[in-house]
Amino acid sequence: MKLQQALDSISGLHTDFIKKAQARLDNLTKPLGSLGRLEDIVKQIVGISGEVFPRVDKKMVVIMCADNGVLDEGVSSCPRAVTAAVTRNFLKGFTGINVLTGHAGAKICVVDVGVDDDLECDGIINCKIRKGTWNIARGPAMTREEAVKAIEAGIDIVGKLKEQGINLLGTGEMGIGNTTTSSAITAVLTGGPPEELVGRGAGLTREGLDNKISVVKKAIDLNKPDPDDPLDVLSKVGGFDIAGLVGCYIGAAVYRIPVLIDGFISAAAALVAIRMHSGIKDYVLPSHGSAEPGTKAVMKAVGFEPFLNLGMRLGEGTGAALAFHIIDAAFAAYTRMGTFGDANIEQYVPLE
Amino acid sequence: MKLQQALDSISGLHTDFIKKAQARLDNLTKPLGSLGRLEDIVKQIVGISGEVFPRVDKKMVVIMCADNGVLDEGVSSCPRAVTAAVTRNFLKGFTGINVLTGHAGAKICVVDVGVDDDLECDGIINCKIRKGTWNIARGPAMTREEAVKAIEAGIDIVGKLKEQGINLLGTGEMGIGNTTTSSAITAVLTGGPPEELVGRGAGLTREGLDNKISVVKKAIDLNKPDPDDPLDVLSKVGGFDIAGLVGCYIGAAVYRIPVLIDGFISAAAALVAIRMHSGIKDYVLPSHGSAEPGTKAVMKAVGFEPFLNLGMRLGEGTGAALAFHIIDAAFAAYTRMGTFGDANIEQYVPLE
Repeated sequence: MKLQQALDSISGLHTDFIKKAQARLDNLTKPLGSLGRLEDIVKQIVGISGEVFPRVDKKMVVIMCADNGVLDEGVSSCPRAVTAAVTRNFLKGFTGINVLTGHAGAKICVVDVGVDDDLECDGIINCKIRKGTWNIARGPAMTREEAVKAIEAGIDIVGKLKEQGINLLGTGEMGIGNTTTSSAITAVLTGGPPEELVGRGAGLTREGLDNKISVVKKAIDLNKPDPDDPLDVLSKVGGFDIAGLVGCYIGAAVYRIPVLIDGFISAAAALVAIRMHSGIKDYVLPSHGSAEPGTKAVMKAVGFEPFLNLGMRLGEGTGAALAFHIIDAAFAAYTRMGTFGDANIEQYVPLE
Repeated sequence: MKLQQALDSISGLHTDFIKKAQARLDNLTKPLGSLGRLEDIVKQIVGISGEVFPRVDKKMVVIMCADNGVLDEGVSSCPRAVTAAVTRNFLKGFTGINVLTGHAGAKICVVDVGVDDDLECDGIINCKIRKGTWNIARGPAMTREEAVKAIEAGIDIVGKLKEQGINLLGTGEMGIGNTTTSSAITAVLTGGPPEELVGRGAGLTREGLDNKISVVKKAIDLNKPDPDDPLDVLSKVGGFDIAGLVGCYIGAAVYRIPVLIDGFISAAAALVAIRMHSGIKDYVLPSHGSAEPGTKAVMKAVGFEPFLNLGMRLGEGTGAALAFHIIDAAFAAYTRMGTFGDANIEQYVPLE
C-alpha cells in the first residue's frame, strides 16, 4: 500500500465497544478501576478490534534488520558483521527474542530491510532497500524515496500478517549502530540535547560515548532535518530498520492490530509514525522502559509510560515479548473474572 | 517454629552459586548485562536455592485474611462483612487472584488469620487468632503474644508449602481496613507523614481520606509504637493479616523460598520482617508498584523497585501473580538462550 493512501485510511477507535468493555470491567467483582492499566489495555484493544471479546492469541514480533552507515564513525562496540550474524541466528531459535517469544506463545517475523549481507536464508523476508544506509555524519542516510519504500514494506508486512490472522504485534530490530540513529531522530523530534539522549548501546566506553554524542550533533548540523517533517528526519538521520518499523506502526493502524513498542529504537520509530499521523497513537502500546537514556525522552514525547521496569537493553523486541504476558493477563482478568451478576459470587463492594 | 528460633536460623545466599549463574549469564549470546533485572532475578533465586538451575514451577500465593477493628472509625468504603465474603469467594475460582494465578500456572493458599466469621469452608486454613483486631484508634490492635502467634502461623505455613514442593511464593491479603493499618506501620517505620502515605483504598471520598489520615495519626499518638521495635509497631498499629504476612517473609528466608511482595500491605509487612532481620531482604523480590500512595515510601524504605508499573490496587496478591511471568521469563532466557560456546550460534559481541 502507498504511504499516503495508508495514512489517509487510518480511522479512530470504536468508542461504542470501549463503552461496552468499560461496563463489563465495572461489573467485575473488584473495586472500580482497581485493575489499573490492565483495564486501559483491555479498552484500547477492544476499541481497536471492534469486538467485545477480541482475541490476542496470535502474537508476532516483527524484527526489522538493517545496517547503518554511521558505523564508520566508531559509534558502536560491535562490528558491522554482527547485524547479519544475529539476523541469521534468529532462525536458529536460541537468541533472546526466540526464547522470550517462545515463552509467550508468540512467533517472530524476520525482515531484511537493508542488511549488508546477501542473507540467502529461508525464513527471512527480503525487503532489502540497499546494503545499509549512508553515513549520517557525512550526508543523509537515504533518499526520501528510499524512506517511503522502506515504510511501505513495513505496512505491507503488517497487511500480510493480518491476512494470516495475527492479532497482536510487537516490534523489534537488529541493526548495529541504530541507537545512534535513534538518538539523532529523538534529538530532532523532541528538541532534546544529544548529551542527554545518547547512551552506551551494547557497551561503549566513556570516550566512545563522547564520540557518539559528537557524531549525532554533526549529523544533525550537517543534514539540517526539518523537525516538522518526520519523513525528512527519518530519511536524513534515521535508518532502514527504523523506517521499516515506522511502516509497522502505520500498518498496525491501517489494519487495526494492536502493536507494542519495544525499547529505544522502536520508540523512536513510533514517534516518527505518530508525528506523521496522530491517530496512530491509539493503536500503539508501550512495553518496557529500556536502559538507554533516550528512551525516557522519546516515551514522554509519545505520551507513554512503560508497563515494565526491568532495565533491559537487548533490543530484538525482547521487551515487547515480555509485555505480551501483561496483555494476556489483562484479557484473562477481563474475560474470566466473575461479575456481580454471577449467582455464585458474593458482593465485593456494595454500591452505597 | 518459634519466632526467635526462625530468625536465628536465617542464613545468607549461596554466593558460590551466584558466581556460577553470573558466568552463564555472561556467556549467553547477548551484550553483557543486557537482560537487566532479569539477570538479577536469576542470580538471586540461584543464590537462594543453591542450585545452578533452580525450578520455579510450583508457585503459590499465600493470602492472609483478617478483619481490622479500626473499621469502626469509618476508614473504608467497604463494610466489614466483605472480608469474609471475598475470602469465601477465593474458593469459588472467579476473583482477580484466582484468574491471575490460574493464568500464571500458580495456586492460592487461603489463610484465615482473624476473619470475623466462622468461615466453615474446606480449603481455608484456619489459623484464626481472634475475630478481628481491636480498634487501633482506641488502643493496640493486639497483644504482643498474639502478634507472635500470627507470625509463627505464617512461618509454619511456609514450612508446610516447602514440604509440598512449592518453590516460588507470592503474598496476598484480604482484610477490609488494612490500608489504614499499613499506613500506620509505614508512617512509624519510615518516619514519613501520614498525609503522604494514606490513600483512598478501595474508593474513599476526600472527606473519607481526611478522616483516615486523622485516624492513623490518632492511632500512632495513642499507642506510641517504638519505631526501633518492629514487633511493637506491628502489634500496636498493625493487623493479623499483616502479622501473618510477616511470618511468610520470615518463613521464606528460613525455608529458602523466593517470595514476591504484592502491593502496599504486603510491602509494609516485608518492611516489618526486614526490620526484624535484615537478611530476610535477600529472599524477597518486588512485583508491582501499587496505586496506593504509601507504596512508594515503603518500597523505598525496603530498597526495592517494582518490576511492573500498572497502577493496580486490587490487592489479593494480584501484582505478585503478574510478576510470576517475569520470573518465568528470566529463567526461560537463562536456561534456553544459546551460549557463545554453542556451535550453531554466531558471535554477537566479540571481546575486543
